[in-house]
Amino acid sequence: METVATAKSHGGVQGVYRHPSTATGTDMTFAVYVPPHAPGTRLPVLWYLSGLTCTHANVTDKGEYRRACAEAGIIFVALDTSPRGEGVADDPAWDMGQGAGFYVDATQAPWTPHFAMWRYVTEELPALVAGAFPVDMARQGITGHSMGGHGALTIALTCPERFRSASAFAPIVAPSQVPWGAKALGGYLGADRAAWRRHDAVALIEDGARLPELLVDQGAADAFLAEQLRPELLAAACAAAGIPLTLRMQPGYDHSYNFVSTFMADHVAWHAARLR
Amino acid sequence: METVATAKSHGGVQGVYRHPSTATGTDMTFAVYVPPHAPGTRLPVLWYLSGLTCTHANVTDKGEYRRACAEAGIIFVALDTSPRGEGVADDPAWDMGQGAGFYVDATQAPWTPHFAMWRYVTEELPALVAGAFPVDMARQGITGHSMGGHGALTIALTCPERFRSASAFAPIVAPSQVPWGAKALGGYLGADRAAWRRHDAVALIEDGARLPELLVDQGAADAFLAEQLRPELLAAACAAAGIPLTLRMQPGYDHSYNFVSTFMADHVAWHAARLR
Repeated sequence: METVATAKSHGGVQGVYRHPSTATGTDMTFAVYVPPHAPGTRLPVLWYLSGLTCTHANVTDKGEYRRACAEAGIIFVALDTSPRGEGVADDPAWDMGQGAGFYVDATQAPWTPHFAMWRYVTEELPALVAGAFPVDMARQGITGHSMGGHGALTIALTCPERFRSASAFAPIVAPSQVPWGAKALGGYLGADRAAWRRHDAVALIEDGARLPELLVDQGAADAFLAEQLRPELLAAACAAAGIPLTLRMQPGYDHSYNFVSTFMADHVAWHAARLR
Repeated sequence: METVATAKSHGGVQGVYRHPSTATGTDMTFAVYVPPHAPGTRLPVLWYLSGLTCTHANVTDKGEYRRACAEAGIIFVALDTSPRGEGVADDPAWDMGQGAGFYVDATQAPWTPHFAMWRYVTEELPALVAGAFPVDMARQGITGHSMGGHGALTIALTCPERFRSASAFAPIVAPSQVPWGAKALGGYLGADRAAWRRHDAVALIEDGARLPELLVDQGAADAFLAEQLRPELLAAACAAAGIPLTLRMQPGYDHSYNFVSTFMADHVAWHAARLR
């Protein structure tokens, strides 16, 4: 693992790191904020998964999480949304291929050699972070935005023993039922929709996955709300399954980091309360 | 004036606007954050001047000012650092020309036709903002970063009746005495150093300009500290002139927005207390 950059920020250290990934077969870049802490202590960790087109840098620049993480004593990890670079398959559209890995392990050509973001984010990166940063892996939370909200929900639902807390900002909750998701899951996993259900939060809940609770913020003026995000499908699934969901429709907010940054401190504090 | 974009953020509205400037003879883009407020009320305004290479977007993306401005009820204005575009003179270096206007009105070729940032920021933009946003122009504060700190200090020292509060992040305090400043002031204003003194905070203070107080934060690990920034020159000038200066050397912080964003909320609150 190579250190790309570090800087003191809000009393802690914001770092950017790069490593050759065995999951993706490419170099992967990620960011870790370590708040001020007593030497030798291990801190809870909040994983942040980003949305379509993003790298680690979008939330690192615009997410406004550092002050809240410094106050709460939480490590914040942000990663890329796909493998990238020469020799990595891509799609001319921004909602498929590089920048759009959808947090799945592709089974279909041309994606199979590199698009293994599920394995990367659930296995390889946690092992790397656990060895290199002062994290307490018994206290993990996960969140994300849009496609990253999809990733956070599906990973939390699949690994409930690992995460004490899960939340999302404007998540894609039912990719099988919306255009972004149908295109991506069809491309990465093939036409058999049965394989999609393990990567669809609503389907996972229908199929028996459970979480103790969920927090979701959604901008009511989000241009993708009605067609791509459809939080009402998550609300219905959670209600049927008895999962306590706090779904806050935030009037006037769009899909951008103006929205995410506004509610970031709330989410960090919410996770912190559950990771103490 | 044309609205480029607006988005709800921290309860208020972050907007980006463009207008044809008579001062620069180019289109100029600027950003205004208006916090939540009761209809009909007029709010204090904090002007933020950016550093070398920046546009309005750097602080808008990375400055983390919106939460603090929402809490304090302050309007925040950020502008570009120079005229830009085809037909505007430039320099191959990043510390001269486009992105490096140094908040002066150029008197030298090839800069004269467009590089009139002093007039732009002290006359044209305030008149535009006063007419288009709910600002109380009797309650203005000014701050800035690096080259923008230089701009904030020189403008506050020149127009003390206009600004109730002035602060800076890692400012260039004595451009006549450092390489960035000598190059820029020589280029824009010519070889006669007498003309530079009106654009040098330390020289202005030596020549009798006064302010009721000043707040300056400076990263102690700033790579530009010893050669370009030299806050000790400001400290000496303020001490000799009896200007109360709060100069905080912040251990471990560099020159980036990791530093600016860490202390932004402090500065906003400091201005707010003086603009009430």
